Amino acid sequence: MDATPKSSGMAFEETLDMRRLQQGECVVPIATVSSRMLAVTEEMRTVMDFARNVLEGDGLAPDACDFMFGNPQETPLRGFVDALIRHVEPQDVHWFGYKKYDALARETVARSLSQARSRNYKPDDIAITAGGFGAIAAALLAVLEVGEEVIYPRPGWFAYGAQIRGAAGTPVAVDLAPGTYDLDLERIEAAITPRTRVVVVNTPHNPTGRIFPRAQLDALADKLAAASERFGKVIYLLADEPYARLVFDGHAHISPAESYPHTLIAYSFGKTLLAPGERLGWLALGADMPEADRILLREAVDIAQVSHGWAFAGRTLQRALPDLEKLSIDVAALARRRDRMVEGLRAAGYDLPVPEGTFYLIPRSPIPDDMAFAARLATDGVWVLPGSVAQLPGRLRISLTANDGMVERSLPVFARAIREVAA
Amino acid sequence: MDATPKSSGMAFEETLDMRRLQQGECVVPIATVSSRMLAVTEEMRTVMDFARNVLEGDGLAPDACDFMFGNPQETPLRGFVDALIRHVEPQDVHWFGYKKYDALARETVARSLSQARSRNYKPDDIAITAGGFGAIAAALLAVLEVGEEVIYPRPGWFAYGAQIRGAAGTPVAVDLAPGTYDLDLERIEAAITPRTRVVVVNTPHNPTGRIFPRAQLDALADKLAAASERFGKVIYLLADEPYARLVFDGHAHISPAESYPHTLIAYSFGKTLLAPGERLGWLALGADMPEADRILLREAVDIAQVSHGWAFAGRTLQRALPDLEKLSIDVAALARRRDRMVEGLRAAGYDLPVPEGTFYLIPRSPIPDDMAFAARLATDGVWVLPGSVAQLPGRLRISLTANDGMVERSLPVFARAIREVAA
Repeated sequence: MDATPKSSGMAFEETLDMRRLQQGECVVPIATVSSRMLAVTEEMRTVMDFARNVLEGDGLAPDACDFMFGNPQETPLRGFVDALIRHVEPQDVHWFGYKKYDALARETVARSLSQARSRNYKPDDIAITAGGFGAIAAALLAVLEVGEEVIYPRPGWFAYGAQIRGAAGTPVAVDLAPGTYDLDLERIEAAITPRTRVVVVNTPHNPTGRIFPRAQLDALADKLAAASERFGKVIYLLADEPYARLVFDGHAHISPAESYPHTLIAYSFGKTLLAPGERLGWLALGADMPEADRILLREAVDIAQVSHGWAFAGRTLQRALPDLEKLSIDVAALARRRDRMVEGLRAAGYDLPVPEGTFYLIPRSPIPDDMAFAARLATDGVWVLPGSVAQLPGRLRISLTANDGMVERSLPVFARAIREVAA
Repeated sequence: MDATPKSSGMAFEETLDMRRLQQGECVVPIATVSSRMLAVTEEMRTVMDFARNVLEGDGLAPDACDFMFGNPQETPLRGFVDALIRHVEPQDVHWFGYKKYDALARETVARSLSQARSRNYKPDDIAITAGGFGAIAAALLAVLEVGEEVIYPRPGWFAYGAQIRGAAGTPVAVDLAPGTYDLDLERIEAAITPRTRVVVVNTPHNPTGRIFPRAQLDALADKLAAASERFGKVIYLLADEPYARLVFDGHAHISPAESYPHTLIAYSFGKTLLAPGERLGWLALGADMPEADRILLREAVDIAQVSHGWAFAGRTLQRALPDLEKLSIDVAALARRRDRMVEGLRAAGYDLPVPEGTFYLIPRSPIPDDMAFAARLATDGVWVLPGSVAQLPGRLRISLTANDGMVERSLPVFARAIREVAA
C-alpha cells in the first residue's frame, strides 16, 4: 500500500465519506491527513512543484535576476523598520497583551478608505488581519457553508483555489475575456448556481495588470443582485485589492464596493511596503452594506480569526499601522522600471501589454512551451514564472520587484533567448 | 424576520443543508454568515458575554486587580523587546520577504525538544506557528475530516470548542475525574467512536494546574492505540503544552508524546514570555511517529498554514526565536506569588488545591453562584474569572499574571468577601 498522495484530480466532496484517493485503478485509503488538506495541496500542486524544483539545488546564484514571486530585491523601506522599532518599545505593562483589533489601527484604515472612496467607512467594519491571505481567509470562513461555490478569476493569484478549499468551499475558476483580460460577464453569469456564495474580483489584477472599468463592475453588480434575489441568499463580492495603490499613468483604482453593497474588501500592506514577511492587512465591510448584515458579519469575521489561530495581526504591527499607512515604495520609480522593461522586451521582439497597475509583466513566450522557455532563461540566471504556473499558459510572468540592476542584466538575456528560438 | 443569531444550542451538522437556526418555535433562515461561524460563536458565547460585560463600562479602574485572562500586568521582559528590535533591523534585501519557516527557528526548537525529551526531534517536523492558537488550528485542519469528533478536557481552555468547530469538527467534552482532576480514562474510552479523530490532552492543565502522571498517559496511549486498530484509522493525540516550562516544586513536565507515537505537540511562547500579543508558537510531530506519517503530516500542516491566511509566524519573530528560546519570566517569583496567594486565601477560609504548574488558582466560591461572588469581588476592584465561564462552576479562576501589588491589595478584599457571605 502506497499512502503517498499524488496528483489525482479528485474533488474534495467525493472523498468526504469514502476517505480514499483514487490513483488510476488503485484506491488508496487515506487515514493520515485530512482529505480537505489533500484537496488544498492539489490546488497548489503546480506552483509548489515549481518552487520546489527551483529551490531544490543550491538556490539562486548571488547575481541571479529573480523575477519570480514578488519578493523584495531591494533594501527595505527605512521608515518601515523605524516604525516597527518604535512600536516594539513598550509604553505600558499591557503592551504585549492579547490583542484583537487596535482601535487606532481601525480608525486609521476607516479614515483612509473614507477619503479615498468618498464614503463613510466605520472603524467597527475594519478587521485588522495577518496580511491579504488572512483577510481572504477571514472573509471566506465568515460566509461560506461547507461545499458552497466561490467563483474566482483565471488567470489569477496562485492561492485562490487553495484558500477556497481550505475554507471547505468549492472553487469555480472563470476565465477572463480572451485578449483584453476584462471581466467576462457572460461566463460569470453562466457559472452562478444556487450554491454560489462568493465571487472574487481582483483589481488591479494579478497578473494582467488590468484595472476593471466601472461599467464592468456595475454590470457585474446587477447580475449578482439579480442572482441573490433569485436564489434568496446573499452572493458576496470579495474585492481583493492589494494593488490598489500600485497604479500607473494617472489611472485610478476603482473598487467593486462602489458598485455592489455586499462587498468585502481585502487589502495587504505587503505590496505597497514590499514586506510580505511581516503579516499586515485588513478586511473591510462595504460602506453601503445594510447595517443588519454588517453587525452579523463583524462577529463572524472576528470569530473566524479567533478560531483559526487567533489570526489577528501582531501587536507591534497593529500599533505601527498608522505610521505604515503613510509609507509606500516609490511608485514612480516602479513605473519607470515597467517602462524600461516593456521597451527593452518589445525591442527584442516580445509581445506584451502595458499593465495599468500591479507589478507584473506578462510577455508572450516566443515558443508555446513556456516552461521550456523559462528554463532556457534560467540557464543564464534570469528566473521568471512560467505562465503555466500562473494560469497563463504560453506567457511568462515577470515581477517588477526585481531591482533595476536585474532589469539591465536580464534584457540582453531575454534578447538572446528570443533570437535563439527564432533561429 | 429577526436574523440575529442568539443562543440556540444547535449542532453545526444540523445546519449544514438547512441553513437555518432554530430559536424555540421560530425557524430563522440564516443567509448572511456561515452556520459554521455561528456554531463557533455558540462555543465562545459564555466567555464572550463575560468579556463584553466587563469591558462594556469604562474598562477597569487604574488600580483594579486584574486576575482574569492571563494578560501581562508587569513590565515586559527587556530581553524580549531587545530581541525583536535586533531582528527587525534588516541584514539583507530579502529580510521582509515571504517566509514559511526560518531554518534556524526550526533547528532551535528541535534541539531544545530533543534535549528536554531525550529523543531525536527533526527540524523538518517543527512548524513555526502564530502562537498556540495557530499550532492547534494547523493540527486540527491537517487531520480532521469535516464532522469528525475531537475529545477535549472539561474543565479546559476556553477556545477548544471554538477551534474544533472552526476546523469543521465536532467537539466532544469529557470531564476530568472529579476531585483529583486526573484524566478519566473510562470516560474518555466511552466517548471514543468511529468518528473520533483527535484526543486533546492539556498538561500542565489550564485551569487546574494538574500535571498528568506518566501512568495515566501510558494507559491513555494503550486505549488510543487499541481504538485506532479497531477502527482502522489513526486517532491522534494533540498534546497542548503551553505551560510546559511553568512548573513548580521540582515537578517535571511529562509529555504524552513520550507515551503515544501519533502525538502532535502544540506550544506557545506567549506564556513563558508573557507576551501573547506577539504571535509565536510551534507544532511538533512526535519523534516516535512513523516516518511515512510524518512526511504526509508535514505537508498537511504546511498547507493548512498557507490556506488559512499564510498563518506562519511573522518574519521578525521567527528570526528572534533562538534568542526568545533562552528567555523566561521568573518562575521562582511566580511560585512565590502562588504560595503567598494560596496561603492568604486559605487563611481567609478559601478551599483550593495547590497547582503543580500553570499560572492559575481555582478556589471554591464560598457561595454556589460563582458569577455573583465574582461580581461581589469586582465591586472592590478585584476581577477574577467566574468558574462558570471556565467550565468550573462553583469555583473561581485566578490568574497569577497579576503583579505582587495586586496580590497584596486583593487579599483583604477576598477575606472581607468570604466573611460577608458567611455572615
